Amino acid sequence: MTTNAIWWPITEQAEAIRTRRISAVELAGEYSRRIADIDPTIQSYVATNPDLLKQAAEVDDAIARGCDPGPLAGVCIAIKDNYLTADMPTRAGTGVEQLTFGQKDSHAVARLRAAGAILPGKVRMHEFAWGNVTHPARNPWNTAYVPGGSSGGSGAAVAAGLCAAAMGSDTGGSIRIPAAACGTVGIKPTYGLIGRSGIVPHSWSLDHAGPLTRTVADAALLLNVLAGPDADDPVAAVRAPEDYMRELGTSLRGRRIGILRNHFTERVHEDVRAAFKASIDFFRREGAEIREYDVPLLEYGLGAIFAIELASSSAYHEQAVRDGLTAGFTDDVRDLVEMGRLVSSVDYMHAEQVRSLMMADFARIFTEVDVVATPSMPITAWKSGEWTVDIDGTPESVLAASWRFTYPFNLVGLPAISVPNGFDRAGLPTGLQIAGPAYADARVLNVAHLYERVHDWHARQPLDPA
Amino acid sequence: MTTNAIWWPITEQAEAIRTRRISAVELAGEYSRRIADIDPTIQSYVATNPDLLKQAAEVDDAIARGCDPGPLAGVCIAIKDNYLTADMPTRAGTGVEQLTFGQKDSHAVARLRAAGAILPGKVRMHEFAWGNVTHPARNPWNTAYVPGGSSGGSGAAVAAGLCAAAMGSDTGGSIRIPAAACGTVGIKPTYGLIGRSGIVPHSWSLDHAGPLTRTVADAALLLNVLAGPDADDPVAAVRAPEDYMRELGTSLRGRRIGILRNHFTERVHEDVRAAFKASIDFFRREGAEIREYDVPLLEYGLGAIFAIELASSSAYHEQAVRDGLTAGFTDDVRDLVEMGRLVSSVDYMHAEQVRSLMMADFARIFTEVDVVATPSMPITAWKSGEWTVDIDGTPESVLAASWRFTYPFNLVGLPAISVPNGFDRAGLPTGLQIAGPAYADARVLNVAHLYERVHDWHARQPLDPA
Repeated sequence: MTTNAIWWPITEQAEAIRTRRISAVELAGEYSRRIADIDPTIQSYVATNPDLLKQAAEVDDAIARGCDPGPLAGVCIAIKDNYLTADMPTRAGTGVEQLTFGQKDSHAVARLRAAGAILPGKVRMHEFAWGNVTHPARNPWNTAYVPGGSSGGSGAAVAAGLCAAAMGSDTGGSIRIPAAACGTVGIKPTYGLIGRSGIVPHSWSLDHAGPLTRTVADAALLLNVLAGPDADDPVAAVRAPEDYMRELGTSLRGRRIGILRNHFTERVHEDVRAAFKASIDFFRREGAEIREYDVPLLEYGLGAIFAIELASSSAYHEQAVRDGLTAGFTDDVRDLVEMGRLVSSVDYMHAEQVRSLMMADFARIFTEVDVVATPSMPITAWKSGEWTVDIDGTPESVLAASWRFTYPFNLVGLPAISVPNGFDRAGLPTGLQIAGPAYADARVLNVAHLYERVHDWHARQPLDPA
Repeated sequence: MTTNAIWWPITEQAEAIRTRRISAVELAGEYSRRIADIDPTIQSYVATNPDLLKQAAEVDDAIARGCDPGPLAGVCIAIKDNYLTADMPTRAGTGVEQLTFGQKDSHAVARLRAAGAILPGKVRMHEFAWGNVTHPARNPWNTAYVPGGSSGGSGAAVAAGLCAAAMGSDTGGSIRIPAAACGTVGIKPTYGLIGRSGIVPHSWSLDHAGPLTRTVADAALLLNVLAGPDADDPVAAVRAPEDYMRELGTSLRGRRIGILRNHFTERVHEDVRAAFKASIDFFRREGAEIREYDVPLLEYGLGAIFAIELASSSAYHEQAVRDGLTAGFTDDVRDLVEMGRLVSSVDYMHAEQVRSLMMADFARIFTEVDVVATPSMPITAWKSGEWTVDIDGTPESVLAASWRFTYPFNLVGLPAISVPNGFDRAGLPTGLQIAGPAYADARVLNVAHLYERVHDWHARQPLDPA
């Protein structure tokens, strides 16, 4: 086989495996060898699956017997380390050994396996998903830079060709931030669309499960597999199955795209701003109508999500705090977890009120437009070890800057995707974010797919000679 | 006309007024005179409507012209003092003059007026709905006793024949407690069924609007008028209109009725226990099947509702606390409002988790039974000025005892009605509570109606010679 298959979309990989043009064992072997070669630099994996080739062989055998292993036959999907897995340990990014997590498949992992996917390993995350750095993982486009987070291992592994796709989770941007920083696709579907049982919680009312992929069509295929009822997630959506690939290829003509004049235009890196402007020009040329909106309430958005995330995370870690185990957390995460107790219930109530009002604002906007477009981040990836970024002369903490454009869609629970949008002057990827109304995931995927297809960012690959 | 009409169900009153057998002016005049005569003792009204007879005359005139003023033509409905009204001031039970409330009709009041109702006045409530005493209102069955609360004025006014029905609000039992204590019907419909815009909030995620009436059919008729979309209440239910009277009269044969073995059997006054046992025997005789359940999670229910109610109430009153205005609150309410700030967001999160799990428990029970029956309160009304009750030898605070059986249905948001269930040895009413799954309000009304019809508690009236 050609090693090039590791870069194929999973739609093509699964088809090639099913038709026996390539074997699952060969493809999994390629990923394994590449992980062994490159991951000591990238550090995206925290555990690899000793049974990977055995599981790949089972897929090949099933096909040889005339069975259909499913739409993800033999596809290698890396799993963020906060998803429980039956055959690999889960650490949720923490080094505190007293904290243990179950060893059975989370809902999403069980769905992937049932669809024929095989799991090369668990990928690195920011400790307990409470941060956007994912130390010590590296950005494949420039290993002096971070991959973002908290699903940094997922973004780095997909970008570096160390898996075909990866699962992430997104509480304030943790799928879309590493997707933008690493130049991959990352979708946070509508709240509850993918069941979260068996994922170590961070902030239950903000947590979303979703995939990071190389193409938008791959993301849509994974949604087909992952969306559906989850009896053990009380807020999982109960909806009729739908085909998230059905709108791919639909023209943009007559589509109404909203852009937001406040918040999403403030303190944006010059190159990100230019890339975003080019995207909007592209949408106009394709026949979309651009409408502009203000969401004044976004002024209170940071306070709202911070109060909710602090409260929820500290509620989850309360026992660990009592047992003194947070002493073993990394400094930044320990500070956040211990700070959560200082948020009063009154502050929390106000935060939820802001959230309700903001939902109403976005619901109104989505009566007038089909989707909203923003940059995914106001910045591109930052250097490892840096905690402050300079945005056109103004310093800002990376924690504050990195999630400014993603967290609003966690507060309101609406589907949002980050799709590659070219590179800044330093050669680091930028991302375009497309968001839509509740359960319009297929429409969001369609707009992103059209954008991606025309631009074909995937012609370039990191780590390989240009 | 016969003064007896003031005791008629509103279904009959409206019919008699529409067919001009009695006039709205005469009926309203009877209520006015009775308020002037009796309410100095009962103290249920805090404001009377100076335009009542003028509004009644408009109803009579409309009918004379052949117009239909609606299903509540000329019916006198008293309004709890936390519902905004255009023609009367709203004080929400507080004496703090700096706190003012709008003077326009709340959503529910506007619906009542549109259906032809007229409003004799605003009725007394426990300050800001944060308590179950409603000082200085009196219980019509024995004026040494309290009417309960927080909708104590509503319960007392309905029981004393000072209105045909009254609006109440219920955050932890504030409709059902005074209904039980005063021997009236009181329904807390499914959360969101009656829009709450224009009602002074107490705890937004627990607050319900609903009526106190003399008969269950009256409650059903009022739900027909009151249920429906409320654009200004973000959690108001959006549902197709339904007729809440449609199931009245359906037999109990084959109905499955659940009773709860824990929590609702603990520390119950002997006479309440006997009345409840008689109710269950009645249901069995009528052909219902009785099934028994445990809800172990109820052990955490009080902590959960207390945390949520404290947090929400203190969030609402935050500005008043900052401005030092709570100094003017009554001692018990000031303590609760100031205490709310001490609830941490982590406690709040745990409370919401208990609530979610409890919702799941009740949802499971309601897959196996049609309704659940409990006593409405473990006690009957207590003496004015008493803050502790004795339950078969064990002392308990009235605040704690009075809402033990009602608050679980606020936490889970399910419909629950209190219907009169005879009298204790002291001649004070006891209540039977019927609860059902979400939006099964018509079913709950049906079971309560059948029970009420057979027992006909309304043959006795308070304040009049036996």
